[in-house]
Amino acid sequence: MSSASRRLLSTITVKPTPSKAHLHRSIPDTAFPQGFRLTGVHCGVKKSAQALDLGVIISTTPKPASAAACFTKNAFVAAPVVVSKAVLEGNSGTARALVVNSGCANAVTGKQGMENAWSMARETDKLITEHSGGANEQTLVMSTGVIGQQLPISKIISGIQGSTNTFGTNFDAWERTALAFMTTDTFPKLRARTFKINGQEYRMAGMDKGAGMIHPNMGPPGPPHATLLGCILTDVAITPKSLQSALTHAVERSFNSISVDGEMSTNDTIVVLANGAAAASDTKAIDEHADPEAFATFREELKDFAIELAQLVVRDGEGATKFVTVTVKGAPTYEDAHKVASRVSTSALVKTALYGEDANWGRVLSATGSIQLSRPLDPTAVSVTFIPPPTSANTAPLPVLINGEPESVDEQRASEIMANEEFEILIDLGLPGAQGVAQYWTCDFSYDYVRINGDYRS
Amino acid sequence: MSSASRRLLSTITVKPTPSKAHLHRSIPDTAFPQGFRLTGVHCGVKKSAQALDLGVIISTTPKPASAAACFTKNAFVAAPVVVSKAVLEGNSGTARALVVNSGCANAVTGKQGMENAWSMARETDKLITEHSGGANEQTLVMSTGVIGQQLPISKIISGIQGSTNTFGTNFDAWERTALAFMTTDTFPKLRARTFKINGQEYRMAGMDKGAGMIHPNMGPPGPPHATLLGCILTDVAITPKSLQSALTHAVERSFNSISVDGEMSTNDTIVVLANGAAAASDTKAIDEHADPEAFATFREELKDFAIELAQLVVRDGEGATKFVTVTVKGAPTYEDAHKVASRVSTSALVKTALYGEDANWGRVLSATGSIQLSRPLDPTAVSVTFIPPPTSANTAPLPVLINGEPESVDEQRASEIMANEEFEILIDLGLPGAQGVAQYWTCDFSYDYVRINGDYRS
Repeated sequence: MSSASRRLLSTITVKPTPSKAHLHRSIPDTAFPQGFRLTGVHCGVKKSAQALDLGVIISTTPKPASAAACFTKNAFVAAPVVVSKAVLEGNSGTARALVVNSGCANAVTGKQGMENAWSMARETDKLITEHSGGANEQTLVMSTGVIGQQLPISKIISGIQGSTNTFGTNFDAWERTALAFMTTDTFPKLRARTFKINGQEYRMAGMDKGAGMIHPNMGPPGPPHATLLGCILTDVAITPKSLQSALTHAVERSFNSISVDGEMSTNDTIVVLANGAAAASDTKAIDEHADPEAFATFREELKDFAIELAQLVVRDGEGATKFVTVTVKGAPTYEDAHKVASRVSTSALVKTALYGEDANWGRVLSATGSIQLSRPLDPTAVSVTFIPPPTSANTAPLPVLINGEPESVDEQRASEIMANEEFEILIDLGLPGAQGVAQYWTCDFSYDYVRINGDYRS
Repeated sequence: MSSASRRLLSTITVKPTPSKAHLHRSIPDTAFPQGFRLTGVHCGVKKSAQALDLGVIISTTPKPASAAACFTKNAFVAAPVVVSKAVLEGNSGTARALVVNSGCANAVTGKQGMENAWSMARETDKLITEHSGGANEQTLVMSTGVIGQQLPISKIISGIQGSTNTFGTNFDAWERTALAFMTTDTFPKLRARTFKINGQEYRMAGMDKGAGMIHPNMGPPGPPHATLLGCILTDVAITPKSLQSALTHAVERSFNSISVDGEMSTNDTIVVLANGAAAASDTKAIDEHADPEAFATFREELKDFAIELAQLVVRDGEGATKFVTVTVKGAPTYEDAHKVASRVSTSALVKTALYGEDANWGRVLSATGSIQLSRPLDPTAVSVTFIPPPTSANTAPLPVLINGEPESVDEQRASEIMANEEFEILIDLGLPGAQGVAQYWTCDFSYDYVRINGDYRS
């Protein structure tokens, strides 16, 4: 900001972003999947000695874990993404470890960046020789933070070497690892669940980090950078191909169905490791074609869990004061419904109206109508409803538009619903016989969003 | 906003939106095209008696003017758009008049809305019987303002009837008409220019209104609504088909290349009337195929003028403190370049960085890389440069990324450039032999944008 414009500063009144601390919960040690050891430590990428910035996850089963991943489609893919892709390919969809650093994205870093990403992976490989029999290149890599800046690679290597005595399997170890993923996330995003397939109990745990700008103290050179990173670990036995198939389905309906600000980063990565540690020795790895029922069960669990993790990112969205579900139904196809939900969820006018607690169906309609569907939309068939959260005293939905006709809206009731931190917007395109349904999760655009992303270097 | 959240209000310091009043300029009477009479009056759609809200433009030449238009592609098209399309079709691309009201968009208003739009058109038709010999349905219609609310049609009809003695041809009449287009625009957007074709001098004048929310006093029911409306009037003689061809080309490179908040409205309309009033009686109407040279000259003039009008909308963007040109070159095609320029221009992260006066090439790069081009992008060929305005003391461009390699940026110099109200971001995709070039014009995302769009009903 120039000194001239500084002189013109004035003040406005804002709602502060509510605390999200209650979303971080303790999890019983027994809820975590078997056969994983992990840690989160401070190695020095972040300046504050309290800030964890290096995480390592190791699968301790004799055989490598099945591994699957979804990566950013951005043309400027970061070095760790390139390395993780190569490792997955080189091991036919298996891996034994994952190393992650926060504070520096290792993106737009050229040859040196590639070398550094490989160094992180190979240093972590050394920690797993006891399991892998010395096989190399079995570690996946993730980085998040500043873009265009080289990793402080010697600090990271020392950090990996020094981490050996810090590994654990209890909540503390999982929590430390989740903390090491964080940039400006306001809480560590860690969840776990158990589920049954063919009578056998399995576990799934995971962590992710949100689209947050890195800490302004990281300093130049290189602008900060928003990224979505996540990993899910499970003790199910499943073939690599089927795991990838399940993950692709799950990511489309979870991480690819959230929006904080509509930006796709150069580092976005979601990884799943399935090590089979809880499977009986005579249990065959789940295969999509050989055992479609078991596969369907697993895929559903994975999808629901991915949605839970993805929603945490939206709830912790930069400056977010609202968590809003956008449901689109009556669309020709799932893809059509997804496109409309995405457009409504990223509309700046819809998102500022959410912040203003205004049931502005006109903006919802405009955004809906701007999407070209595979079958023409019929404006006289579209209905829009605002739905309060199930925890409300009055859970009655509020229709604002029915079959293209604006309702005479009870403004008092509309304000009541919009005052909730959480609610749903249902858009029924109403096309006859159309079964396409999709959901998206979004947050509002607040003054704090502008402050966080506009003011951090001024 | 709930009373609970009101209690938590705090204040932040903001840069106020700079005044744009200097962009409204007086224009000599002689600069306006011949053969047009026009007016702007207050008829009562807007509450304030000072606020003009009804404009009428009439072409007075014996033959109807060639007319062309580009309309919103939104599925929820407003009634005036439907009527204008029908009038254009019914008259084989000619028209004699244009009537516009601000304050109410006549969108999502069903049958009644259609009837009202036709009433406006037919009442205006009565003003032109002296020219048209009683031919009906020669008036195009535009509306902008609140959505989902019926027009106060009797006020509008009285307004049209009462306007007869207020028509003029001088600056005052043009200015009043431009004022009648406005919703929350902070200044009337009126421009004129002269040009020559085959040695003959012609004139072109036009006005538009921006993506602004209507005045909060308009009251319920129905949420406010952003729209782009514009019209260009010229005394050139050109065939309807060639006029449409020129306009389509011009709109793609002007009004379709600007972004305030990335929203497509239900009413967006740009109209051109060319009445041939300045053409000598033996001058043939310009035809794209019969006289490609004259056509090319006109198309270029129309494009440049449309860009000038379109830029005014961005300069007056809601809460805008910056006016930024995004130029993309070295793309496989124009369409590729346009897609990238559009994505960068609508990126919330780029726009908040512009507000924060931060030369954040990482965000520019992320947005660029998220677009799928017709030929794969080569990250090692991309360069990004920040270019100060030509009026700067130091006009040297600042490269921040050359062939995919981040430059060591002089932060002082970067701040200097970003402190300007106006500058350019040049993205060279650097694909060998690729000639695709496109420009986009955008503004920043400021606290005031959130205030204007989030707070207007609270």
